[in-house]
Amino acid sequence: MSTPPLRRKRATVHDVAVEAGVSRGTVSRVVNGERYVSEEARVAIEAAIVKVGYVPNNAARNLVMQRTQAIGFIVHEPHSLFLEDPNIGEILLGANTALSDADYQMACLIVDSERDTDRVARYLSGGFVDGVIIVSARQNDPITKVVERLEIPAAFVGHPPDLARAPFVGIDNRGSARSITERLLGTGRRRVGMIAAALDRDSGADRLAGFTDALGARFDPALVERVPLYSYAAGRAGMHALLERAPDIDGIFAASDAVAAGVLDALREAGRSVPTDVGVVGFDDSAWAVRAQPALSTVHQPAEGLGRAVAESVLSQLRGEDQPAGGILLETPIVWRDSA
Amino acid sequence: MSTPPLRRKRATVHDVAVEAGVSRGTVSRVVNGERYVSEEARVAIEAAIVKVGYVPNNAARNLVMQRTQAIGFIVHEPHSLFLEDPNIGEILLGANTALSDADYQMACLIVDSERDTDRVARYLSGGFVDGVIIVSARQNDPITKVVERLEIPAAFVGHPPDLARAPFVGIDNRGSARSITERLLGTGRRRVGMIAAALDRDSGADRLAGFTDALGARFDPALVERVPLYSYAAGRAGMHALLERAPDIDGIFAASDAVAAGVLDALREAGRSVPTDVGVVGFDDSAWAVRAQPALSTVHQPAEGLGRAVAESVLSQLRGEDQPAGGILLETPIVWRDSA
Repeated sequence: MSTPPLRRKRATVHDVAVEAGVSRGTVSRVVNGERYVSEEARVAIEAAIVKVGYVPNNAARNLVMQRTQAIGFIVHEPHSLFLEDPNIGEILLGANTALSDADYQMACLIVDSERDTDRVARYLSGGFVDGVIIVSARQNDPITKVVERLEIPAAFVGHPPDLARAPFVGIDNRGSARSITERLLGTGRRRVGMIAAALDRDSGADRLAGFTDALGARFDPALVERVPLYSYAAGRAGMHALLERAPDIDGIFAASDAVAAGVLDALREAGRSVPTDVGVVGFDDSAWAVRAQPALSTVHQPAEGLGRAVAESVLSQLRGEDQPAGGILLETPIVWRDSA
Repeated sequence: MSTPPLRRKRATVHDVAVEAGVSRGTVSRVVNGERYVSEEARVAIEAAIVKVGYVPNNAARNLVMQRTQAIGFIVHEPHSLFLEDPNIGEILLGANTALSDADYQMACLIVDSERDTDRVARYLSGGFVDGVIIVSARQNDPITKVVERLEIPAAFVGHPPDLARAPFVGIDNRGSARSITERLLGTGRRRVGMIAAALDRDSGADRLAGFTDALGARFDPALVERVPLYSYAAGRAGMHALLERAPDIDGIFAASDAVAAGVLDALREAGRSVPTDVGVVGFDDSAWAVRAQPALSTVHQPAEGLGRAVAESVLSQLRGEDQPAGGILLETPIVWRDSA
């Protein structure tokens, strides 16, 4: 590939120096906040910076300051799920707000394939960011390994499987799942099942554990349908399979709201009425939940709060503050509507 | 703010030089792809790079090469709309795929407030990216002005209002709106209205123009309700207002699928049956459209294709190729389902 044409016309340190009538070294000292510059030179340089429209070259300054004022936000999700997950957008915006408050630029990097993993790892190694936020890390995640090796300040949304002591923010998936299942049982249902999803992740495994906790001695493994993803399609297919096996089912805990959307459509297709025949509860409290027919009873996931908190964790590390041991868990109120 | 602690332990050029038994200058020449290095030294250095796990510091290399291998992807949307717009995620993933194919890292930057605008402008000026993709530029957009001033390679999704000659990819909003309105009229509807949204953008204004084109002499301005955003809430409120004014309405073109979702709920609340009493069509063909009750007839927006095409435009500029005059418009087939 040929070298691209260079067409940037930004003002340089040289332009500032000429305008202010000082040396380039003096300009650099002012720009980098160093001492030993006369007040007269400083005033002249600051006026010249405004006049010529000079913006310091951050890439150059990084080499000196070892800082970029940028934080990477890594989303590791397959293509389809990135679009379907109601939380990622909210987490992203919450983090952007907190970083913006601290004058940091957030750069969101998407990992959708193996190839992306390698390139993002190279980008992190290349000194483009001062810290990193990671959403939905998996077991043996190569990005996690790179972050660990570089010892770059990092914080996770959700507990990273391989890094026992990494800072993270999350929710109590197990406790929340138990609470909403108990509430569903409290409506008098006798055959309560679950569409369990994403069991390769802590969140998915913990939600199933919470469901099992709530049922105790009444737990019947035949009423759990396991599906791979937190998705509408998986929920719909899973519900059809479960109805085939257990036609007398009268309650369902769907592992996410997207799964619940599929469950509602499958029940409609099978001629079951919600909540009369089957009570349905979800997990997330997405924007869709309130519009569902009937409106969905679900667990509120504080997605924007997770974004803010994970950003604060990285900022705190950058300030060199002591980090609390373990993660931070945010509250997850139950929102009871019409579907159960 | 104090300087953050430096804790990165990445391998340096020095480590490679020691391992290979050559000078640091020789290592740099190999890393930067320069000539005048013996084959023997090159082989030793490449082995040493693998052994010590050296990754070249891109920020440093940028200064020499004037390249970052990164492309900014700027989304300029208010908070709520970023989450509701079904296209942004698809455009993002399409662009990520095309950039990944060319070994470029995409860094998504969100502009949600005035403060974000200034910071993103500074980031672009700072040399962190080689080019930029901009989604949903507005009139007098400060980001657009910065891009213009820096003469950084850039391409837009949708026609940027202030830059007549900027490369862009988009769709024919006016022609598509006319086609789907004609199709709706073809079902025998006599009182067809529109919930027109986002008239401060080309897309919104063009969709209304296409609706007007289709109706010709039958156009009745009283049947157009103008709402500020492409959102569910705006669609629902707009439909209630229009029903109040024109209770005999029997067809609706909603300016987007999110608007159509609000329209369907408002019609349900008002006791109107779709499509029997009122035929409804949307615009986008979002993932939701197929699940709507009834499934929505709409215009298919090739969002992922737009993402790929806009990325290809920036890559082509980086290769120094001649650019086609004007923008590239992608096809938008009508998808006819059950709502009209």
